[in-house]
Amino acid sequence: MLANVDRARRVLRDEGIDGVISSTLENNFYLTGVWNVIYEHFQYDTQSYVVACSDNVAGGIMVTSVGEADLALAAYSSIADNITFGKFFREVRPEAQLSPDELRIKARTIDQAQEPSAIDALVAGIAAAGLDRSVIAVDERGANRALIEELTSRVPQAKLVPGAQLFRRIRMVKTKDELERLVRALRITENAIRAAVAAASPGVTEAELHGVFERAIVGGGARPAFTHLRFGRNMALGQLPSGDTRLDENDFIWFDVGCTYEGYRSDIGRIVVIGDADSHLLELCAASLAGQSCAIAMMKPGVLPNDIFEAVVDVVRHSGIPHYRRHHVGHGIGVEFYDQPTISPGSTTPLESNMIFEVETPYYELGFGGAFNEDTVLITDSGSQVLTELDRGILKAPSARAIN
Amino acid sequence: MLANVDRARRVLRDEGIDGVISSTLENNFYLTGVWNVIYEHFQYDTQSYVVACSDNVAGGIMVTSVGEADLALAAYSSIADNITFGKFFREVRPEAQLSPDELRIKARTIDQAQEPSAIDALVAGIAAAGLDRSVIAVDERGANRALIEELTSRVPQAKLVPGAQLFRRIRMVKTKDELERLVRALRITENAIRAAVAAASPGVTEAELHGVFERAIVGGGARPAFTHLRFGRNMALGQLPSGDTRLDENDFIWFDVGCTYEGYRSDIGRIVVIGDADSHLLELCAASLAGQSCAIAMMKPGVLPNDIFEAVVDVVRHSGIPHYRRHHVGHGIGVEFYDQPTISPGSTTPLESNMIFEVETPYYELGFGGAFNEDTVLITDSGSQVLTELDRGILKAPSARAIN
Repeated sequence: MLANVDRARRVLRDEGIDGVISSTLENNFYLTGVWNVIYEHFQYDTQSYVVACSDNVAGGIMVTSVGEADLALAAYSSIADNITFGKFFREVRPEAQLSPDELRIKARTIDQAQEPSAIDALVAGIAAAGLDRSVIAVDERGANRALIEELTSRVPQAKLVPGAQLFRRIRMVKTKDELERLVRALRITENAIRAAVAAASPGVTEAELHGVFERAIVGGGARPAFTHLRFGRNMALGQLPSGDTRLDENDFIWFDVGCTYEGYRSDIGRIVVIGDADSHLLELCAASLAGQSCAIAMMKPGVLPNDIFEAVVDVVRHSGIPHYRRHHVGHGIGVEFYDQPTISPGSTTPLESNMIFEVETPYYELGFGGAFNEDTVLITDSGSQVLTELDRGILKAPSARAIN
Repeated sequence: MLANVDRARRVLRDEGIDGVISSTLENNFYLTGVWNVIYEHFQYDTQSYVVACSDNVAGGIMVTSVGEADLALAAYSSIADNITFGKFFREVRPEAQLSPDELRIKARTIDQAQEPSAIDALVAGIAAAGLDRSVIAVDERGANRALIEELTSRVPQAKLVPGAQLFRRIRMVKTKDELERLVRALRITENAIRAAVAAASPGVTEAELHGVFERAIVGGGARPAFTHLRFGRNMALGQLPSGDTRLDENDFIWFDVGCTYEGYRSDIGRIVVIGDADSHLLELCAASLAGQSCAIAMMKPGVLPNDIFEAVVDVVRHSGIPHYRRHHVGHGIGVEFYDQPTISPGSTTPLESNMIFEVETPYYELGFGGAFNEDTVLITDSGSQVLTELDRGILKAPSARAIN
């Protein structure tokens, strides 16, 4: 089970909310485990929803186009139903003995009339969930941003409130299944960094190492997402694509990279050298690492992200980068690359056990490059645990071990 | 140049439109060539725009967060400017001699005050483009769906109209640069199909071939997007992930697969056998292929998609699938997987030279699987040209040659 059902019940009941409607790929996936590939084709237009009661958000009703009905098959062990709309044709081989899955698709998508539109199907889903006179939190980030307005006239007895922030709040604390997928995404990413570092020698280009990295991500069973891999001072202009710059013995490699594995994300970073590290690089990275270590040491249930942020910036400033400025030094991770809370000024959501963070203290310096350490950290009952297995600090190619 | 500047001028001037504002990853990319990776992190929230005059849509003003200012560096040869907002810190190494790019980023993001918000930066961009008293088509599919309403009060002298459909209309006819990227995306996909077919032998699982396919996509320098790869009757429930089903000698493999290469998409499909093809499969695929061939033969400038659709369905029905039903038999492809027009009932946009289509005649049969042929087709001055190099029809493993 991906969804944190107990937490959802508590969060939603505390707010007096009887049920939820999710509308994004990620929130639908979180509630059902179904990764709806149709969002890949029609990312701005896909109308797919899950209607669920607050008491069991994983037992909701999927509302999808009839073309997506096959996707629901993977979720019937938990969901209550799949209500479908629109037009998509499947036929039946008369002489075949149909399997239970095939029979279900036949019953659902051929024998049964379809709702004419997404909104009709959604209204039917709300009624079937018994929520048509209830308080419903509606995830407003999906394709139909006028949804709440539209539903207000279609389910006039219900009270509809914005839901995206509630989904974020529910998702902050991870379940065991989520932790496992996040760790797997992390391991695949670490292995891909190791593969790229093993291939790093003088003369190699950014684009070549980029290729090594992404092939290793796919080889691990994940999908590449963002691969910031630049050499030396290119780091300060770092979001441009990896290019033709060749690695010099005195240069360094910057990784800020992430993938998607079974719906879950990774996002970690390192600085890697092939020769001796430049003294300025050593100073910057030591300061960055000291700040990151400060965050990790402070992290435990009850601590406020804002307090961590202030302490971390202070430590970096006193450890070698006196002019250090930053807008955040970390963020949650899960089905989105940035889950709540962020470790940033004004962030006052207390840490809780089983939150998972990316903790980072980036520094970008035009004319040089910068410093970077980013690791995945689990909040435990009594403190925090770094989930990354790569050595922390500056790594050295080709072994990928820390230089200190 | 990706954008079809001449066509944009004509389409927009015909509608009395003086300028455009794009807001999605794809439309911003189309106008500037900049693939904004920030959409990967914040897909529902990224506010990034291009403001451009109708006379030169590729010479517009990028409006981005200051954190994205480095991305604009790749576009300064065509764009007029980059106006930035928000907070992101870069520092300068005092002793370094800055490169022109570094100097530009320093001037833009450090020396200069930032606009406080995305909407402020956008208003400034509209003024800088001289469009604040003009008719502007605003791409309404970006993160800020209330954009038109918000801008109406901020640029009260301008007349704002919805723009997403105009972007689709402009993008229908491809430039030479777009054709090259689409062909490259196609070749990478074809090679990946060949790699998977070469690895297809009795006992292999769907998931194993899926891995071979996606590794080949990344090996070709592209990103996997959707990989529908199922065996036999699984095809009719085809959007579920490739699983543990093992390939039987009498079974077939269904590919409906696509990738992203430098912002451009591919989407092609085949049926592949390892042994002798089942007679029912031969019949179905022959009918599907006949329909697809009918479409390709009909395609030339001036023909209406609706007429092609009617003819294709009729041909499939007379060629072996008398009960054939379908909601479309093709669609444009470009920076989105589905560009306009679609080859579907009621689609009356006449074909034009340099449109590029995916032409497909899918058939899904519960209890058996189905039939599938999908190819990329360019409209030429006098007809059409199949861009796919793979043999058409049923392929046989391991050679990937057609069986007939």
